[in-house]
Amino acid sequence: MKTRITELLGIRYPIVQGGMMWVGRAELAAAVSNAGALGTITALTQPTPEALRKEIGRVRAMTDQPFAVNLTILPTIKPVPYDEYVQAIVENGVKIVETAGRNPEPYMPVFKSAGIKVIHKCTSVRHALKAEALGCDAVSVDGFECAGHPGEDDVPNLILLPAAAAKLRIPMLASGGIADARGMVAALALGADGINMGTRFMATREAPIHENVKRRLVEHDERDTALIFRTLKNTSRIFRNSVAEKVLELEYKEGATFADLKPLVSGERGKRMYETGDTEDGTFPAGLAIGLIEDIPTCAELVSRMIAEARALIHGQLAALAHEN
Amino acid sequence: MKTRITELLGIRYPIVQGGMMWVGRAELAAAVSNAGALGTITALTQPTPEALRKEIGRVRAMTDQPFAVNLTILPTIKPVPYDEYVQAIVENGVKIVETAGRNPEPYMPVFKSAGIKVIHKCTSVRHALKAEALGCDAVSVDGFECAGHPGEDDVPNLILLPAAAAKLRIPMLASGGIADARGMVAALALGADGINMGTRFMATREAPIHENVKRRLVEHDERDTALIFRTLKNTSRIFRNSVAEKVLELEYKEGATFADLKPLVSGERGKRMYETGDTEDGTFPAGLAIGLIEDIPTCAELVSRMIAEARALIHGQLAALAHEN
Repeated sequence: MKTRITELLGIRYPIVQGGMMWVGRAELAAAVSNAGALGTITALTQPTPEALRKEIGRVRAMTDQPFAVNLTILPTIKPVPYDEYVQAIVENGVKIVETAGRNPEPYMPVFKSAGIKVIHKCTSVRHALKAEALGCDAVSVDGFECAGHPGEDDVPNLILLPAAAAKLRIPMLASGGIADARGMVAALALGADGINMGTRFMATREAPIHENVKRRLVEHDERDTALIFRTLKNTSRIFRNSVAEKVLELEYKEGATFADLKPLVSGERGKRMYETGDTEDGTFPAGLAIGLIEDIPTCAELVSRMIAEARALIHGQLAALAHEN
Repeated sequence: MKTRITELLGIRYPIVQGGMMWVGRAELAAAVSNAGALGTITALTQPTPEALRKEIGRVRAMTDQPFAVNLTILPTIKPVPYDEYVQAIVENGVKIVETAGRNPEPYMPVFKSAGIKVIHKCTSVRHALKAEALGCDAVSVDGFECAGHPGEDDVPNLILLPAAAAKLRIPMLASGGIADARGMVAALALGADGINMGTRFMATREAPIHENVKRRLVEHDERDTALIFRTLKNTSRIFRNSVAEKVLELEYKEGATFADLKPLVSGERGKRMYETGDTEDGTFPAGLAIGLIEDIPTCAELVSRMIAEARALIHGQLAALAHEN
């Protein structure tokens, strides 16, 4: 398949594995890249910039295909040495960076002078246009469906993608709510040049998380995510389990503060869940795509199935019904 | 175009104009049906069953194409003589009914024995399966994007449509968030057999509402709807204007009751707005498709443009990018 995204990133299929804290490690990223899509390791999953250098080396040892590094810039309690992580990315010859959280303006000059392609994640048309103005090479537009932070506008991709496509000139990835060929073709019809999947790639054989978590992704349906921190204007879509229900109760019935709630859903707890498989210990970001995940294939099986089914859908069913009459 | 919906309903294109209170009158329904889609008049827009009989006659005088009657069954303060409206529908030879609100079980025997095709509107997979079990001929699945009542699950069509398609045997219309060919092709890719549009048909020349309302639909963007009555578990998506903002403020800051709020957004006020063009007098249901409406064409222009663009999208862009490589 050929789109502006495959051309820009030098990949075979217009599918990108989104940045995921604790999940975006070399094993998953390399498997995705070897499947012809774009794998992504997450910078802050590594405890230090030095560890990130090693992780980049591990990806390279497992694939000769393009891959990306995600850099999520968020306010944190403990200061993060972002400049040093950026140096680790640039000095190790990474060619594609996905930025998320705050706008990537401070790091654009160093990325651009290193010839790095920058894909910025956005949750609205206005932020996508801002990213374009800053010189980003592409945007990844996160609809209301997405895992983690969908913003506060609550505009699903059925509207957000065509609204953004009508105004953007740079290529656009559709992110949120996509788990299979149907969603992929829909996103392409809506004006996207490719898709980003996070939650779907968690339920693959190579994802470095406990089997119990993957099984819960298969078992859960489209009503099994929760939007927490809504009252704090910092909405996050997470896996709906007993911990998520507890957070919702404290948030809505008892007016709990962020400081009260954050320990229940901390990144450390999420990391521990992924390791131990105790799926009621904490919770983790999960998108609405959870309602469409029915199996745990390898990344190669997932990507090749999606491409084959997308082609069949376009050349088969859609072409047939669109005939003149 | 040929799909299970065009076959079932005897229409040329898989596009249905959804039932809309005060808007679904003979002029609009006939224009839509004459354009090759399915026009719909709304039973309760007519003050009496006798007036509905006359309105059905008016549609017939303006088109020889199939059309539908919407029957929305909701709890009301003033009792509605539903049985008599149903009789008016059946005795006047109507062939297609769209039911909404409560489940249509009480009226299924009379509709089925009259050979009427019943399309039921649902907001979840479980309700769609229930409608199928009741003998409905098709369902119209309303995603989170839709105008009026999206339910409380907040599942957008990007997920809801494929989730429903995977379980349903009867044909499915996609409803909510669709205003153009891009959304139509996306819905078909996601497993729908056709689409339902409400808000988009309000912004047509033939819609029997004041020009000011149509212009506001063009001006507003994807952030300009509001979800009211959420705290009452009776969520309704409406046009975001000063009245909508007032309702949100009373609802969230002052814990107002339904009885307090309903007069601000009453159907009578909506009707008056449509007549006078005072778009801050009340408010009215409006879906997220509002973000994709850029003009006020005739129904024939809208439908023919959508079909031409859908064909170009499928046979052109999508077919080209799906080529082997």
